[in-house]
Amino acid sequence: MTITRGYAATAAKAPLTPTTFERRAPREDDVSIDIKFCGVCHSDIHQARDEWGGAAFPMVPGHEVAGIVSAVGSKVTKFKVGDHVGVGCFVDSCTQCATRNVDLEQYMPGLVQTYNGVEGDGVTPTMGGYSEHMVVKEGYVLSIPDNLPLDAAAPLLCAGITLYSPLHHWKAGPGKKVAIIGMGGLGHMGVKLAHAMGADVTVLSQSLSKQEDGMRFGAAHYYATSDAATFDKLQGEFDLIINTVGANIDWNAYINLLKVDGTMVLIGVPEKPVPVMAHVLIGGRRTLAGSMIGSIKETQEMLDFCGKHDIVADIELIKIQDINDAYDRVIKSDVRYRFVIDIASLAA
Amino acid sequence: MTITRGYAATAAKAPLTPTTFERRAPREDDVSIDIKFCGVCHSDIHQARDEWGGAAFPMVPGHEVAGIVSAVGSKVTKFKVGDHVGVGCFVDSCTQCATRNVDLEQYMPGLVQTYNGVEGDGVTPTMGGYSEHMVVKEGYVLSIPDNLPLDAAAPLLCAGITLYSPLHHWKAGPGKKVAIIGMGGLGHMGVKLAHAMGADVTVLSQSLSKQEDGMRFGAAHYYATSDAATFDKLQGEFDLIINTVGANIDWNAYINLLKVDGTMVLIGVPEKPVPVMAHVLIGGRRTLAGSMIGSIKETQEMLDFCGKHDIVADIELIKIQDINDAYDRVIKSDVRYRFVIDIASLAA
Repeated sequence: MTITRGYAATAAKAPLTPTTFERRAPREDDVSIDIKFCGVCHSDIHQARDEWGGAAFPMVPGHEVAGIVSAVGSKVTKFKVGDHVGVGCFVDSCTQCATRNVDLEQYMPGLVQTYNGVEGDGVTPTMGGYSEHMVVKEGYVLSIPDNLPLDAAAPLLCAGITLYSPLHHWKAGPGKKVAIIGMGGLGHMGVKLAHAMGADVTVLSQSLSKQEDGMRFGAAHYYATSDAATFDKLQGEFDLIINTVGANIDWNAYINLLKVDGTMVLIGVPEKPVPVMAHVLIGGRRTLAGSMIGSIKETQEMLDFCGKHDIVADIELIKIQDINDAYDRVIKSDVRYRFVIDIASLAA
Repeated sequence: MTITRGYAATAAKAPLTPTTFERRAPREDDVSIDIKFCGVCHSDIHQARDEWGGAAFPMVPGHEVAGIVSAVGSKVTKFKVGDHVGVGCFVDSCTQCATRNVDLEQYMPGLVQTYNGVEGDGVTPTMGGYSEHMVVKEGYVLSIPDNLPLDAAAPLLCAGITLYSPLHHWKAGPGKKVAIIGMGGLGHMGVKLAHAMGADVTVLSQSLSKQEDGMRFGAAHYYATSDAATFDKLQGEFDLIINTVGANIDWNAYINLLKVDGTMVLIGVPEKPVPVMAHVLIGGRRTLAGSMIGSIKETQEMLDFCGKHDIVADIELIKIQDINDAYDRVIKSDVRYRFVIDIASLAA
């Protein structure tokens, strides 16, 4: 076992503070990782503050992990010391349940979350990437292309795959009109990825304040949803709409912007159920769907795609000592576009 | 022009009464039809009673029309006198709008409803199948296979295609588990069609009162939704669920019965919006979709499929003089499973 430094929430309403904890001794199929950077996901805050219920403390958050391999077990074949690697939202999954599908393990029972979860042994709590070291089964380690800077690549492990998966599944590409609702940490990745896939990308944001950035990320069009005229003008316009917003917005108004056979995909979870009018779906054979992160196979595919197209997140690099302030700023949407912790600051 | 007898609603709350009205003189591309039978759809009631707004009176309802060709225009090539034919929910559609797609005309602007609509000239009201005679453009007339009895085939023109289209589009077939919510006029057609397509069919009905019929129609399983255990037992069970119920039921409980990548299709329109919880969609990449009747091409495909598999509706044949009682019974779900008007009774 290794004693590892990190930052932990010790209770639902407590600020994150320095901690030390044990990482398991590497097994023959494990990869040991020196963590260099870790992205700050809004879901870190939901869990650290126990807003979704069931949180286990102390909790070391972090599932946008980027680092360098420091050791590999005897049976590891895909990685060697020095490789740039990432770890995303889960570090193990069931391989035996009847519904097992290697391409969709994120939807299957038995998934082990990277933090705030429990290992396959049923007792050991998992601890995330706000820490200097990690030991992960080879099958759940991702290869980060060498041309991508590790700090800005970290958010690909959650924000990137969360957008890539629905864009890919619902076939964003040439000839397709894709809208991204919200241009935060998730949304700005959606614009970059959909543009790289060849789609005609529109951002639907509350205001035009980030329009310049949106166009730089690859959007061809940018509309303010605070302007009611937007919803008249864009009726029946899109093949695919990805809703990255967790606020309780009127989904019906957006579904109306879909073409016949268009799909709106939810990736943000509003606090309350949202009333849906059947006729907006029925009148155009439209679909309302949900999507959650992606499989390991698909995450690697996404990283390779990002390597090929030089796609990373736009980030603000912070010291880990500033994590509590960063949380408050995420809640106020005051970040362009993802905070990433420089793990070297742990040693400061 | 021809004077035609029929039954009409003269105002939103008035019972239907005998009437006469004019049908246009057949044009070169028109088919003249002696109507033999007309199904009674719940939407006839919604429109005759102006429950959806915008009703135009007097209104002759009826869009499940089955009859025999009495004359054809000089340019008609697909039909001849004596042919068994049907007319469904629309009698014309736009052929010029930018979004025109010949396979999806039911979703396009410019659709002309069979009744309670306005012809392409912008002024002539359309009148439906509660009448003895009809003149319809060849392109909107369907061929009814000779082996199907005309009375029980009539409901195929709306109830049949309304179920066939989503079952076909979302690939009901061998190896697929399909659930039908509600076993009324729509639902019982869904059971028959999904079974004939080779799917494993489950009925989800309020009670078990129609179970014997359900199994006869082709269901392999039948569950009462009034029993909470049903929702535990069937979690993650279905590839496809068709919701034929227009009542405000809890969609989330049913979406939870879908497998990963499963789809629930709405074909009934509840009066009020239904609250949807994002996580039931997100947690399994599930989709909630809507579907509305079908294209002319698909309706003909459905009729040919029904001819091949000897599928018709289970009906109660009524005289047109009993239409107002029939409406009251439809509202009470007291019909097994579709009322069909014997148009010969008009002459009585």
